[in-house]
Amino acid sequence: MAAMASPYLKASTRHSHSYPKLPRTHFAPPVSLPLRPLPASRTRSATRISASLIDPDGGKLVELFVKESEKQSKLQQALSLPKIRLSKIDLQWVHVLSEGWASPLKGFMRESEFLQTLHFNSLRLEDGSVVNMSVPIVLAIDDAQKNRVGSFTSVVLVDEKDDPIAILSNIEIYKHNKEERIARTWGTTAPGLPYVEEAITGSGNWLIGGDLEVINPIRYNDDLDRFRLSPAQLRDEFERRNADAVFAFQLRNPVHNGHALLMTDTRRRLLEMGYKNPVLLLHPLGGYTKADDVPLSWRMRQHEKVLEDGVLDPETTVVSIFPSPMHYAGPTEVQWHAKARINAGANFYIVGRDPAGMSHPIEKRDLYDADHGKKVLSMAPGLERLNILPFKVAAYDKTQSKMAFFDPSRAQDFLFISGTKMRTLAKNRENPPDGFMCPGGWKVLVEYYDSLAPAENERVPEPVPA
Amino acid sequence: MAAMASPYLKASTRHSHSYPKLPRTHFAPPVSLPLRPLPASRTRSATRISASLIDPDGGKLVELFVKESEKQSKLQQALSLPKIRLSKIDLQWVHVLSEGWASPLKGFMRESEFLQTLHFNSLRLEDGSVVNMSVPIVLAIDDAQKNRVGSFTSVVLVDEKDDPIAILSNIEIYKHNKEERIARTWGTTAPGLPYVEEAITGSGNWLIGGDLEVINPIRYNDDLDRFRLSPAQLRDEFERRNADAVFAFQLRNPVHNGHALLMTDTRRRLLEMGYKNPVLLLHPLGGYTKADDVPLSWRMRQHEKVLEDGVLDPETTVVSIFPSPMHYAGPTEVQWHAKARINAGANFYIVGRDPAGMSHPIEKRDLYDADHGKKVLSMAPGLERLNILPFKVAAYDKTQSKMAFFDPSRAQDFLFISGTKMRTLAKNRENPPDGFMCPGGWKVLVEYYDSLAPAENERVPEPVPA
Repeated sequence: MAAMASPYLKASTRHSHSYPKLPRTHFAPPVSLPLRPLPASRTRSATRISASLIDPDGGKLVELFVKESEKQSKLQQALSLPKIRLSKIDLQWVHVLSEGWASPLKGFMRESEFLQTLHFNSLRLEDGSVVNMSVPIVLAIDDAQKNRVGSFTSVVLVDEKDDPIAILSNIEIYKHNKEERIARTWGTTAPGLPYVEEAITGSGNWLIGGDLEVINPIRYNDDLDRFRLSPAQLRDEFERRNADAVFAFQLRNPVHNGHALLMTDTRRRLLEMGYKNPVLLLHPLGGYTKADDVPLSWRMRQHEKVLEDGVLDPETTVVSIFPSPMHYAGPTEVQWHAKARINAGANFYIVGRDPAGMSHPIEKRDLYDADHGKKVLSMAPGLERLNILPFKVAAYDKTQSKMAFFDPSRAQDFLFISGTKMRTLAKNRENPPDGFMCPGGWKVLVEYYDSLAPAENERVPEPVPA
Repeated sequence: MAAMASPYLKASTRHSHSYPKLPRTHFAPPVSLPLRPLPASRTRSATRISASLIDPDGGKLVELFVKESEKQSKLQQALSLPKIRLSKIDLQWVHVLSEGWASPLKGFMRESEFLQTLHFNSLRLEDGSVVNMSVPIVLAIDDAQKNRVGSFTSVVLVDEKDDPIAILSNIEIYKHNKEERIARTWGTTAPGLPYVEEAITGSGNWLIGGDLEVINPIRYNDDLDRFRLSPAQLRDEFERRNADAVFAFQLRNPVHNGHALLMTDTRRRLLEMGYKNPVLLLHPLGGYTKADDVPLSWRMRQHEKVLEDGVLDPETTVVSIFPSPMHYAGPTEVQWHAKARINAGANFYIVGRDPAGMSHPIEKRDLYDADHGKKVLSMAPGLERLNILPFKVAAYDKTQSKMAFFDPSRAQDFLFISGTKMRTLAKNRENPPDGFMCPGGWKVLVEYYDSLAPAENERVPEPVPA
């Protein structure tokens, strides 16, 4: 597996590889894919079989970048517009919108889109067709900002250094009823929901929607930008590999061998179904996560080790970062996670127990029924085209000393290692049973917890066991 | 207008009228319509133009009554089944389901229907089509009841006297997450929501869904049953009248001349649109309402006076009672109110400011944005076939001494008389301005408040003005 791209150890050498030129030069980053390039002979003979990739929602992938030729005039225009300062999470949503993960959305939601999202988890398009849209993608402003906007019909969105990021035009300002938004999105208004506390509670009482034009692609300069492939880039990559099926695996946690078993087994099933070249999109979420989740940079190091250890086949795996922030809104959010992957070309979506779930913030129970995520996903409007692949339950099989699909007829042979348990072991520098996770991946986890200052480490809340 | 049916004064004479025989003899009540029968000549020449009535949701009106020939065997079967005791509101839902207001629902919701209702406000049918369903129609049971059901696949639903009402078969029992149900239905979990306090907070932690078979049509024996026409009966009546458009007006409050203006103006507009015989369905809600709403029996007396006073034309008006309980769930509930009227044959639905809304139970504001109801309704999945007619705002025009459509160019001429104001005037036996409501109708309201014992009267909460 030494030939596999390693984001940390081999990044400099990867830059020299000849990744096929991306057609969207106005934003194409200097990409170094975390993947082994296909042999030259195969690359040459590859025909683009775009017919095999699922169409984006709305039929066309939306990209909201200002053309290179218009950049100067837009920057000039921006000087005269009222400024809206973006939070870190707002910027992540600008990123999400700009690359078309939320296609066919063309910017922050106006009220009609917001209401359809809250009430129907879907949007009806002009032609009468329906696309899924379960999570509000909105921009909040306060009274003072609203007053500054006054009768302007466009605003400029700026980052924390006041640099112009995007222009929002044909704006619509409407009320931000936070209580209703929270209740309808999370199914609770209990205090302590991470995204709510981070991004909603302190936000303004107005929402501003409009058409977004992003001046430069969003970059984080954290040495991970090269993993942030846009839906268009991912589609190109899947076509380059002649993928005839793409199965997406969303994750925000370290990968253990149970996950790996599931992913390899999914590929096996797809081959059995007659697909010739199913490709896995291993797609860790890269936006906001709650304080006790393992941070993206450490997760990426962990994923790298897992791939290095040969647990997954790099030939048929694309690792990329999904730029969305995390809501922890369970059955509502899993729809967003699935829908966004359609736009990136995935036609199969793996869903597990309690996706995007967490413990209830104030009661001793999980916030969502563990089965509701996959049930809601399978019934969601606008996701009919997506094949939902429900998780089989993997557990540690003591008789084989490895992760295996749980066999209820010999339940006593299996050990369930929860996230809490895994976390506790890593914190205490203890080892999990052999075969639970590759040793290199485990070492990264232990290093992460070691890296936390003792005081900070103590502050990490202990989730309630499911 | 003396020829108009009067539910209180003329009920006995109405029974002698020859109302056309209803085909569904297994449940047809001895109906005395609160309407003037059409002249015999016209009745004879009437051809049934059923093509002009909108199809019920799912294509076919669901009726869930046990056939007369099977009644005895069902009653026999019921003896061996576990009993579930119905609350008053449960019984109203049995009524609603049994007559097909919720078509194509065939009984209390199973989990897949419950989840689709909560998340999507709609149900996808087997043929891929979508019908609206925004309010959960569910039956809660507690742990002890669940244990009693055990491995039975059917249960008998009984009333407070233990008399068998219906059989629920192919049952499915699933968790009743009240917090999530409330949050997703009302968009708040604030204490003090009337339906929640009445029907959810104290209910069991399980929901039981299944196929409903109702042994006898639900009757309340309150002298109002004859106004409770089923969707099938209403459809027959609209056909008998050769209606080529049916416009429904949902109400739970006394009718004032502003409402009347709106209804007559709607008919005028429909005639202008080319319809030859638009019929109004004046459809007061008859199920559970909150303590400070005017009770159904008084409202029916008030409506009767309004009709007697000739404010509405009985020739083109059908007055009937909608048996549903009230949720006060604003934009979520207005979809239910509209959808149920499709099943009764209405293809036009009048929607006003803040439909099904109320004051926030603990904050000094309306719970819902006054415009969200009509916006959500106009975008709701499964209601595409229904023509939504948004309210024009009517107010008291001091220059004309009558209710008129508000003209913003001479705003100073208009007086807005809120529900609070109306209530306060009636309580204090004061008169509203001439032309606000017909004197007979006003007198009923004053009598109602007089009838309340002083202690009870004091307890009537004062709503917060919008």
